Amino acid sequence: MPQLVLIRHGQSAWNLENRFTGWWDVPVTDKGADEARAAGRDLKAKGYAFDVAYTSLLTRAIKTLNLVLEEMGDLWLPVHKDWRLNERHYGGLTGLNKEEMAAKVGEEQVFIWRRSFDIPPPPLETTSPFDVSTDRRYAGLPVPQTESLKDTIARSLPLWDEAIAPDLKAGRRVIIAAHGNSIRALVKHLDGLSDEAITKVEIPTGQPLVYELDAALKPTAKFYLKDR
Amino acid sequence: MPQLVLIRHGQSAWNLENRFTGWWDVPVTDKGADEARAAGRDLKAKGYAFDVAYTSLLTRAIKTLNLVLEEMGDLWLPVHKDWRLNERHYGGLTGLNKEEMAAKVGEEQVFIWRRSFDIPPPPLETTSPFDVSTDRRYAGLPVPQTESLKDTIARSLPLWDEAIAPDLKAGRRVIIAAHGNSIRALVKHLDGLSDEAITKVEIPTGQPLVYELDAALKPTAKFYLKDR
Repeated sequence: MPQLVLIRHGQSAWNLENRFTGWWDVPVTDKGADEARAAGRDLKAKGYAFDVAYTSLLTRAIKTLNLVLEEMGDLWLPVHKDWRLNERHYGGLTGLNKEEMAAKVGEEQVFIWRRSFDIPPPPLETTSPFDVSTDRRYAGLPVPQTESLKDTIARSLPLWDEAIAPDLKAGRRVIIAAHGNSIRALVKHLDGLSDEAITKVEIPTGQPLVYELDAALKPTAKFYLKDR
Repeated sequence: MPQLVLIRHGQSAWNLENRFTGWWDVPVTDKGADEARAAGRDLKAKGYAFDVAYTSLLTRAIKTLNLVLEEMGDLWLPVHKDWRLNERHYGGLTGLNKEEMAAKVGEEQVFIWRRSFDIPPPPLETTSPFDVSTDRRYAGLPVPQTESLKDTIARSLPLWDEAIAPDLKAGRRVIIAAHGNSIRALVKHLDGLSDEAITKVEIPTGQPLVYELDAALKPTAKFYLKDR
């Protein structure tokens, strides 16, 4: 029975400051690191094990994965780091405090940008201090300057199709450490949620989300590990 | 100009206790973690950067690499973890304190097993608590039960030929976090040392060893980073 565990990175410095983060590479806080270690201990205590891991190119997700694997005694696992698991690129919102932004353009507009399925925020200017388009980790990749959730899903799912789903079908147990919106992409796909429904799904930080799947990779069970 | 940096893992719990470690998977000590972080800071301060990393399947090397990369802000780098960079398998010496061993079989015999090029210690019994032959990380691999330095070199160099050398020739800057004897394998190859000479080379823990190479991967310079 294919088994998949998704985990959003532990609390980051900007989660704490309530800033739009997106592709800006902020570290996890001490609390976030503790969340990750606790997740690793819980996975191990409940008998979970993995054969392969996936994560994004962002430090907060990679660090979370490394801490989970270290607690499990499994730092040796192969880890695929892929930009397609990066957080949604929040465009011109990147770096802004959510309250400041609401004061500037209005709560409603921020809500639309955050929660609509297919309306991206304005693009991030390449002159912004938060621009990452020339970061060498993305060399040769189609780096966006803003994304709707729809855009994020569209670039995340090819990784599922090309690599993660084949791993699962080959019997490999998979853990994915990623971000609120790249995890939403996978949840929408697995649960068959509508465009509307996925915008309302919240993914908590540092909580392993377990999917048990059938041979066709349809979910037969889904639960947060802390509830078992 | 191809650039290669080798780093032996930071101090491990068994380095501290002076025990033969080999393939037994002991963690780094707090001091070892600090050594790794300091190496990462020094590499960054002196302008080093990498495009790809290699390490073994042993926690102390992987953790060292992760700490180096975290300090450099480069946790996103692709990391290849390969058993061929594991420490020499010390066979029946695994887990024994070097003084206890000397008392049991004599200093001279221990010296021969440790320092001869091609005489392996007796094989580790599969009933030993330190046997790792059934560890799932080695499933399908030709796990040894003891190795001479010659054996370690013989299984390490194919990784150089198949993957590391091609990366360097393609212009990728490579860091390798490994172990005393798997690093000796690379040093012997790069420096063209005799079987006798390599047994006398000591590799300090947590110290980046820089090789500057020509297009044919012959060394044009070699130094410990701390000396620059």
